[in-house]
Amino acid sequence: MVRIALGLEYDGSHFCGWQSQPSACGVQDALEQALAAIAGEPVRVHAAGRTDTGVHALSQVIHFDTAALRPENAWVRGTNALLPQSVSVLWARQVDDEFHARFSALERRYRYLLLNHPVRPGLFSGKTGWFHQPLDIELMRKGAAHLLGEHDFSAFRASSCQAKSPLKQLRQLEIAHQGDTLIFDLAANGFLHHMVRNIVGCLVYVGKKKYPPEWIAELLASTDRTRAAPTFSPDGLYFADVVYDPKWKLPVTCRIPSF
Amino acid sequence: MVRIALGLEYDGSHFCGWQSQPSACGVQDALEQALAAIAGEPVRVHAAGRTDTGVHALSQVIHFDTAALRPENAWVRGTNALLPQSVSVLWARQVDDEFHARFSALERRYRYLLLNHPVRPGLFSGKTGWFHQPLDIELMRKGAAHLLGEHDFSAFRASSCQAKSPLKQLRQLEIAHQGDTLIFDLAANGFLHHMVRNIVGCLVYVGKKKYPPEWIAELLASTDRTRAAPTFSPDGLYFADVVYDPKWKLPVTCRIPSF
Repeated sequence: MVRIALGLEYDGSHFCGWQSQPSACGVQDALEQALAAIAGEPVRVHAAGRTDTGVHALSQVIHFDTAALRPENAWVRGTNALLPQSVSVLWARQVDDEFHARFSALERRYRYLLLNHPVRPGLFSGKTGWFHQPLDIELMRKGAAHLLGEHDFSAFRASSCQAKSPLKQLRQLEIAHQGDTLIFDLAANGFLHHMVRNIVGCLVYVGKKKYPPEWIAELLASTDRTRAAPTFSPDGLYFADVVYDPKWKLPVTCRIPSF
Repeated sequence: MVRIALGLEYDGSHFCGWQSQPSACGVQDALEQALAAIAGEPVRVHAAGRTDTGVHALSQVIHFDTAALRPENAWVRGTNALLPQSVSVLWARQVDDEFHARFSALERRYRYLLLNHPVRPGLFSGKTGWFHQPLDIELMRKGAAHLLGEHDFSAFRASSCQAKSPLKQLRQLEIAHQGDTLIFDLAANGFLHHMVRNIVGCLVYVGKKKYPPEWIAELLASTDRTRAAPTFSPDGLYFADVVYDPKWKLPVTCRIPSF
């Protein structure tokens, strides 16, 4: 048996999320089907992070074990020939048996795109969140600063969250803007279920001046999800990157187009 | 009767091109249907430029005449409520009867996105062209320089082209790159059918060193379409902007997201 790691990108609007489903509508289902055809045997994959329905990936990492010996390129080109157009394998590497796509991850990164414009998205429908009223980005940055560091993020956690602990270390939360789009970049050792979308929702409350930036600190301290803003749309959420120890020798491939 | 101009963006992968079709699969069909519901009467629209199947628009401009008197906002918000998610009206303005979306246009701009990477697009499938071998961007820029100015562009013209003259003035042809994506920006008084996609195809021939940059000059001079490269994919083509005389007082709205 060998262990293979793969990097992949996908358009989540064509799937019911990452996870395998009885109706086979998950990205995992499409990937396992394609890999099984290349391997000539059933393949079970493990991902760095699960994504919800409609959430995209710029750089998801998975691993699987197989008895099939194939050149790395076969796992890339062969699999891509069998996958739907909206998913592609970016690279493949044979890795040490100790490597685990989920448990070896040191950091996960997400990006959220939010169109801040009176008119809803058309061309990038499904690829960007949308808020129609003007947002004060400086207030949002002040609010965001309260979230940096290690905290109990229960106030930003979905009731469905299966994480053992609500303690996460948020290492980055930057808000840039380009044209009418706000770009949120987040990095943490891990994220709770809906954590990014809940943070974006609460920062939008600050940006539209429903609450002051200090409300974010109070909300965090309260650990009370019922006080937070509604979960924001999945459309603008991108699982952007996973960081591993360089000892695993994984390539860095995140292809970011520019419009 | 009043004349109304609209700016709109759309995802061309959901339509069979701009133009109205008997099967109503054109962007024009969707737009005319929505506008007719707002106007309470049939509406016929005229566009700055037609786009082919799979070609997108960041900023298309159209006009129509109607007896219906509606606030400008109703033409935006009302129409958007009735349009498919992949099209949106960005603005509406009542304009002088002399204004014509097509005939008043002074310049049209296109953008072409080309992913230059061994692996096909996944996340941006349908939104970017793709070429798998390495391209020499400096050679492509040298080739592109031969096309600037007023020329007979017959060598880059589709046989289906209905333009009266093959003479066009190409004012801009820049090639930038960001990550693994080449970004072609073109501006001209007008474009022949398939002209951008044929230019991109020929520049790819230069970039992969099948022909030297001077081949572009020879090809242009030959006015012989049969000597040129195949028409490149519509996936990466964006109708990016239309320039009008400021006297028409049209707003400038082109919403460009960033990944």
